[in-house]
Amino acid sequence: MNISVILGHPSLQSFNHAIAREAVAALQENGHRVFYHDLYEEGFDPILWGADAKGAVAPPGSDPMRQELTMSDGLIIVHPNWWGQPPAIVKGWVDRYISERVAYLFPDEDEGGGVPIGLFSDKRVLIFNTSNTPKQREKEVFGDPLQILWKHCIFDYCGVKTFHRRMFSTIVNSTLEERRGWLQEVRETTGQFFPKQA
Amino acid sequence: MNISVILGHPSLQSFNHAIAREAVAALQENGHRVFYHDLYEEGFDPILWGADAKGAVAPPGSDPMRQELTMSDGLIIVHPNWWGQPPAIVKGWVDRYISERVAYLFPDEDEGGGVPIGLFSDKRVLIFNTSNTPKQREKEVFGDPLQILWKHCIFDYCGVKTFHRRMFSTIVNSTLEERRGWLQEVRETTGQFFPKQA
Repeated sequence: MNISVILGHPSLQSFNHAIAREAVAALQENGHRVFYHDLYEEGFDPILWGADAKGAVAPPGSDPMRQELTMSDGLIIVHPNWWGQPPAIVKGWVDRYISERVAYLFPDEDEGGGVPIGLFSDKRVLIFNTSNTPKQREKEVFGDPLQILWKHCIFDYCGVKTFHRRMFSTIVNSTLEERRGWLQEVRETTGQFFPKQA
Repeated sequence: MNISVILGHPSLQSFNHAIAREAVAALQENGHRVFYHDLYEEGFDPILWGADAKGAVAPPGSDPMRQELTMSDGLIIVHPNWWGQPPAIVKGWVDRYISERVAYLFPDEDEGGGVPIGLFSDKRVLIFNTSNTPKQREKEVFGDPLQILWKHCIFDYCGVKTFHRRMFSTIVNSTLEERRGWLQEVRETTGQFFPKQA
């Protein structure tokens, strides 16, 4: 399988980086081809310029990320919870690449106000987040917005059927023991989600 | 009053720009001082580099936007609904400026996992959004995530007590008549929200 890993955190020493490394190791162990994108490291430009009423204008067919997404079998996205949302650099990746003709299509007669046809129905999406908000407060006070955004707003819309998301919290006062357990979980979840192919 | 207007849309011909112009006109009519930021036009850099476990590292005291926010009495934020979230450029403004010591403080004994003290309790916040999702579908299918993000996740956290948000939809198939009515509403709402000072 071809799997794209999208990571958005400024610090190489972050737990997000540790998660991404662990996920990559699990993918490679299962024989998958990994496309690794540390968006900060790559200096990814998050600004979408071409947007019309229908949404993002698709990047050109020769765009490497567009080509990669078209042929990928799965995505792993790793980022911290900043204000119930991904960091701007990850949001910009969504703005620019989860675009019409890459991730969804409108029926010919639709001007963009209707329900689209998802083009990601064969892709599996796995998301790992970190947070400093305790789980109960995140759910009860904020309604777990990252679940709403990634699942309902974005990937349901693109036709994704196999979706899993896990938020690790709270990072700021976690013990070494806890973090080791979380990384073990990342490894197992990733391995099960993207199993070895026969 | 000192009011900052934050606008995030790539096209000068957008309805978002029309909304922002109308809001500025209403503010000026009421004698307020306006700080206008078309983030695309300014080439705003949305990338937050300095983030520790507690969140964004505050920009230096000499940073002009930080100084402006410290002395502002209100904010008007204008952007389209892109995936239930603001565009990356607006998210980056949040990442960089809604930071510790600018917008909130943690009590000394707190490492960042707790509930902060909001520093925006005297500011009024008005948000205008545009969307191509019909209102009912936005509420029922997606749960109106922009309301959750701006009100519950961000400005409640910073102590804002006077908050109003209005989403205009659907833009893509609106009539000229409808858009004129919406701009009239922007003018009235802004005028009432930031009234003439005695």
